[in-house]
Formats: sequence, C-alpha cells, structure tokens
Amino acid sequence: MLGASRRWRAEGRSIGLVPTMGALHAGHMRLVETARGENDVVVVSLFINPMQFGPNEDLDRYPRDWDRDAKMLQEAEVDAVYRPTAAEMYPPGASTRVHVRGVTDGLEGAARPRHFEGVATVVTKLLAAVAPDRAYFGQKDAQQVAVVNRLARDLDLGVEIRVVPTVREPDGLALSSRNVYLGPEERKAARSISAALREAAAAYSSGERDPVRLRARIAARLTLEPLVHLEYAELVDPATFQKPGTLAVIAARVGKTRLIDNHDVTKPFPG
Amino acid sequence: MLGASRRWRAEGRSIGLVPTMGALHAGHMRLVETARGENDVVVVSLFINPMQFGPNEDLDRYPRDWDRDAKMLQEAEVDAVYRPTAAEMYPPGASTRVHVRGVTDGLEGAARPRHFEGVATVVTKLLAAVAPDRAYFGQKDAQQVAVVNRLARDLDLGVEIRVVPTVREPDGLALSSRNVYLGPEERKAARSISAALREAAAAYSSGERDPVRLRARIAARLTLEPLVHLEYAELVDPATFQKPGTLAVIAARVGKTRLIDNHDVTKPFPG
Repeated sequence: MLGASRRWRAEGRSIGLVPTMGALHAGHMRLVETARGENDVVVVSLFINPMQFGPNEDLDRYPRDWDRDAKMLQEAEVDAVYRPTAAEMYPPGASTRVHVRGVTDGLEGAARPRHFEGVATVVTKLLAAVAPDRAYFGQKDAQQVAVVNRLARDLDLGVEIRVVPTVREPDGLALSSRNVYLGPEERKAARSISAALREAAAAYSSGERDPVRLRARIAARLTLEPLVHLEYAELVDPATFQKPGTLAVIAARVGKTRLIDNHDVTKPFPG
Repeated sequence: MLGASRRWRAEGRSIGLVPTMGALHAGHMRLVETARGENDVVVVSLFINPMQFGPNEDLDRYPRDWDRDAKMLQEAEVDAVYRPTAAEMYPPGASTRVHVRGVTDGLEGAARPRHFEGVATVVTKLLAAVAPDRAYFGQKDAQQVAVVNRLARDLDLGVEIRVVPTVREPDGLALSSRNVYLGPEERKAARSISAALREAAAAYSSGERDPVRLRARIAARLTLEPLVHLEYAELVDPATFQKPGTLAVIAARVGKTRLIDNHDVTKPFPG
C-alpha cells in the first residue's frame, strides 16, 4: 500500500484514509464523503482486527458482507480499498504492540482489557502502511478518537486526525454495525441511550452543571427501560477521558448487545 | 522533519537515516559512510533518549559533545541533522509506548527493565518523523537490532533496516561511547570481552558445537580478569534472542562501566 501512497504523493495528490472493519453503514459513508471533500485520493481500509476483540466478545459473529461493502465503496468512488488478511497483518512472529497510557485506563479500556492495545496497534500499522495526510474517525467511538489522537501525535506519524459527527437513526440511535444484532423490542429500547444523552444536554442548557446530577439523570432515564442494562455513564474530558468533563459517555447492554454512545452536553443534541 | 523528507522523496531521492545518541565515534561514522553509499540523502539523528535509561543508569553522565559531533557530521557531508530536544520528543501528556514482546524478554531486556520499550518507542518516532528508505544500526547492539527489525516489520513502517558490522579498537574492544568511562587499567582489562568472543569462535571452528561448553569457555576467559565482572554470556538466535543459537552475547562490568559485545561464532573473529 505504501508504494501506491508514495506515487500519489509524488504526483502532489493528498491522501485521506478511512479505517473501517467493514459492515459499512451511513456513518462510515459520512467519513468517506468527508474524506472525499478534503483530499485528492481516498483510501478505505477494511479489516476486522482480531487483536481488539476480547476472548468472550463477538469476533466470530461480527457482521461481514464484502459484496455489499464493495458495492457501496464503488458507488462512493473511493480510489483504493486496503483489505489485508489477518495473516498479512499479523504474520507468525509478529510481537509488537502499541500502548497508549492514561486515556485507555477507564471506561472502554476497563470494560474491554487490551481492546485499545489492539486498536492502537492496528491503527499505527494502517497509518504507516497508507501514510495518509488525514485519517477519519467517527465521534461515536469517542475514547478510540482520544487514543488515536494521542498515538498519532506521540509517534510523530505526521497525519491529521479528523473526527466526524455521529450519524443517527431518525429516533436518535447512533449507527453501529452491531445494531443488526438487536431484536425488534431491543431496537425500541435502545433509543433510550440517545434519549438519555438528549436529556443530559437539555439539563445542562437549563443550568445544571453538577456532573454527579447529570450522570444520575442519564442513569435514571436508562433505568426506565427493563431491556437496557447500564454498564457505565460518566462525564469526562474528551481528550484525556478523565473526570470531570462535559463529554457524557454511555455503555449499555440491550439484551446481549453492547452499545456505546456519547455527546458533549454543552452542545444541543442533534435532531 | 517529515516535510523535508517528503520533498526529497518527491525529487526522487532516497533517504538513509542513522539514529545516534551523539558522542560520535568511528562506529557511528561507519554507519554514516554505509548510508552515504546506499542513499541520495543521509540524515543523522542525535537524541539522548531519557526513556531508554533506567533510574540508576548513566543518563546524567552520558558523554555529550555537540561541537565535536557537529564537526564530524559536517566533514562526513551529511545532508541533515535531526536533533530534537527531550521536550519536543516527549511533550506534556505524551503517553504512547511501543513494546516488542519476546525478543526483549531476556539478557539486556532482563538486566535493564523498560530499556527496550524506550528504544522501540523512540525508534518508531524517528522512523516516522524521517520516513527513510533505510535506517542504519550497529551490530554491537545486537538485541537492539533484533528489536528494531521486529518493530519495523510489525508496524509496516516500510523501512529497510541495515545492520553494519561492529567497529573495534586494534586490540578488539568494540567501540562504544561509554568506553570513555574506563580508567587505564580498566581499559586493558576490557579487552578480555572481545578476547573471549574470539576464543569462542576459534573453539567453534575447531569443532566445538555445544553451547554450554562454548558459554563456559567465555566465562572462564573473563574470570581471568579481576576487574571484569560477567553479567551474562549466552549463545542465542540473533533474530529471536532465544536459546540456543550461534550468536555469542556478553554483558560485563569493568569497574563501574557496563559494556556489551557479541559475535556470531560460526564466523571468524575479525582482525
């Protein structure tokens, strides 16, 4: 991939990379459109990264539909698709890991041990292999954004990390490849996650500044839904993921499906 | 640095990087000459990396002579010197570490906890910041070579790692910036390290294949020198640093100065 990238660069063309795990939805395509508007060449990577899944997580059943993905990328007129196999990414003997301290300690980092080491390692590899000018990540995975921002700066990768707002269903549910796991009742219940974020933003705009009370409102809203089990709700700094802050972050299980979402409560909730 | 590097690349010029901690000697200059012969542009980095020194090591007294280094690099006609400050390399909040598993477990990795994490992190940063076609390392630091080879491949850095033979004093002592620490009697005693490697190579060429007996010969030779305290001597695989292998590696203290050296016993010892 680096050879093609260097040729584009030699031609004076700027390069945008959109890293994905496939199972593309409108959120990914928003990343692609944004990259399209800001770069001469758009590369999309598709790689379901085993290193970022825990032993009891959904690696085996993570949705895969390459034909559909390929069609969507063709219609979006991306310039190149980088789709390495797991054996290419992690050949025998590969033993290097990238670890970002601090920002990975809590929340997703605590709930999913080694998840962010897998993310940081594969993102470093993708950024090295494609050497883009800009790389595009969705705000939905807020802690991942903080990790990627940190590593890109810390390792002098010379890439600008661009963060694109979360795309939502009409009822507020954040788009996620994992939404396909939800049954009809679970799908209805799942809207309480974005509803809780909307309520926290409304409370903030009405003058509520106490993170403990904002957090309690979110928890109370989710308690109303018997199908939803709250894993965490916190208000954190979006760069460090330390408390206190104004980024409300939620992880919840809806049936067996684990969903995350977030919103900066100082801003009106969209829609 | 990446901007200059991309301009050279756009002009079709190949780039060689020689990473150093300054205190340049003929070993470093051999790296520079080799890089000169294989690339259009030669960049030398000078950075004493605090992250790779342990709390009780010699960071504070590590030799520094920028004027002398600058003169040597000017005479060698290097194209650019990359000399970041510690604050530039590790600004407040920097928290990313590169860790290479396996090859760092034993020997220097065991004697110097976190040393190779510091090496791997700074080398990743230097390779990202300069984006060279080739980077040059001395065989004297054999385990470092194995670590750098591993990370360059594992992180898809697209750089060829070139290993240059150790430069030695006439009596066999491997050149090292730390040799200046040695008093006159210590300097004489220090030659026993290379002498032991020479004896192991001679024994191998006489038919000795048992790594336990080869190791015992090295230890016996060093025991003859009262000023030398052997830390370890092993025969390891040069890529994995696991036993058994044919690379004889030694760490020893000569007075208070810690020195390392190595030699592939299947090859005649030079000189």
